[in-house]
Amino acid sequence: MTTWLPTLKTATPEEGYELAVKMARVAVKMTQPDADMRDKLRPDYAENADSLIAVSHVVATNFATVAAANGYWMD
Amino acid sequence: MTTWLPTLKTATPEEGYELAVKMARVAVKMTQPDADMRDKLRPDYAENADSLIAVSHVVATNFATVAAANGYWMD
Amino acid sequence: MTTWLPTLKTATPEEGYELAVKMARVAVKMTQPDADMRDKLRPDYAENADSLIAVSHVVATNFATVAAANGYWMD
Amino acid sequence: MTTWLPTLKTATPEEGYELAVKMARVAVKMTQPDADMRDKLRPDYAENADSLIAVSHVVATNFATVAAANGYWMD
Amino acid sequence: MTTWLPTLKTATPEEGYELAVKMARVAVKMTQPDADMRDKLRPDYAENADSLIAVSHVVATNFATVAAANGYWMD
Amino acid sequence: MTTWLPTLKTATPEEGYELAVKMARVAVKMTQPDADMRDKLRPDYAENADSLIAVSHVVATNFATVAAANGYWMD
Repeated sequence: MTTWLPTLKTATPEEGYELAVKMARVAVKMTQPDADMRDKLRPDYAENADSLIAVSHVVATNFATVAAANGYWMD
Repeated sequence: MTTWLPTLKTATPEEGYELAVKMARVAVKMTQPDADMRDKLRPDYAENADSLIAVSHVVATNFATVAAANGYWMD
Repeated sequence: MTTWLPTLKTATPEEGYELAVKMARVAVKMTQPDADMRDKLRPDYAENADSLIAVSHVVATNFATVAAANGYWMD
Repeated sequence: MTTWLPTLKTATPEEGYELAVKMARVAVKMTQPDADMRDKLRPDYAENADSLIAVSHVVATNFATVAAANGYWMD
Repeated sequence: MTTWLPTLKTATPEEGYELAVKMARVAVKMTQPDADMRDKLRPDYAENADSLIAVSHVVATNFATVAAANGYWMD
Repeated sequence: MTTWLPTLKTATPEEGYELAVKMARVAVKMTQPDADMRDKLRPDYAENADSLIAVSHVVATNFATVAAANGYWMD
């Protein structure tokens, strides 16, 4: 996991959003490194409305950081 | 999903709020790409007070980012 | 719902707080447009301590944005 | 409730923290205006660890705003 | 409780983190002033993973404020 | 625990993210100092989707602070 986050800069807001999603996933991987266990847990959140909303909140928090890092892509 | 977020700029605060709602939904779609499953889950949150409050929190977090990106529409 | 948020500017912090409450409610309305359903859900959160705390958190998040937009009413 | 928040300025960080607590309570009052109901709900959160932690989170979010409004009381 | 928060300035990031923990606890004390009740509730959160994660979130939110107040200890 | 956070500066975004994870864990340790108890609780969150999402949210909040402290590693 040494090169997954070389920079917070992205070319577009969309790519920034995708980075925010990725960042949300990495914390999960670092806390539960077992890929089989993560796969087993997938239906628990992917088929649960409250879990999906919680995922969206984490992405929103990460996106705030990515957007600030990119000057909101205003240039 | 390549053009859903070309910019964080919006003409008005209202459009910014609508963008924040859209952003909240996209993270859900990226985590649960199956539209049928999402439709099936809809009553779970749309008819649940706590889920609706949680949705509103995600929108608030996204709106903070959109509002900052727009200089709070002060011009 | 085209004119509910013409600006984030308010004359006073109190009005800003009221706007933050309004913003919290609009996301709920946009997610659950059926007014009868929302009325039916009201006791679920208005008579539940954890739900009320969650509402207060959403308002706090929105108020942060409104306060920043108003330069914290320092002038 | 017309004069509860005349300003976000406070003389000290402590007073700012107390204001943050007050702000957290006002959103609850605005959502559940019935004082008897709020009194009835009090044990539900005051004797519940998770509810108390949630209250603390709302206060933290409000305090961030109050602290920023006061320039972190650095002068 | 008149002198618990004389300033947000701390000498080091670590002391700032400790202040953030303290701030998280004060909101709990202000909401539940009865020390015996708080002691009774301690196992409910100290032996519960989700409660501990929630505590960490409150600390993170407070630390953001303390860190900003200290200019991120960059000098 | 006197030297765990000498600075918020990190060489890269990745190291900043790792610091954010560490910060999330320290609040847990400070609240539950008993390592055996923490080990016992590990499956409760490491094998629970909602807990893992909550951990990711705490990391996101801490990372926002670390990223700001590092000027988003833009230099």
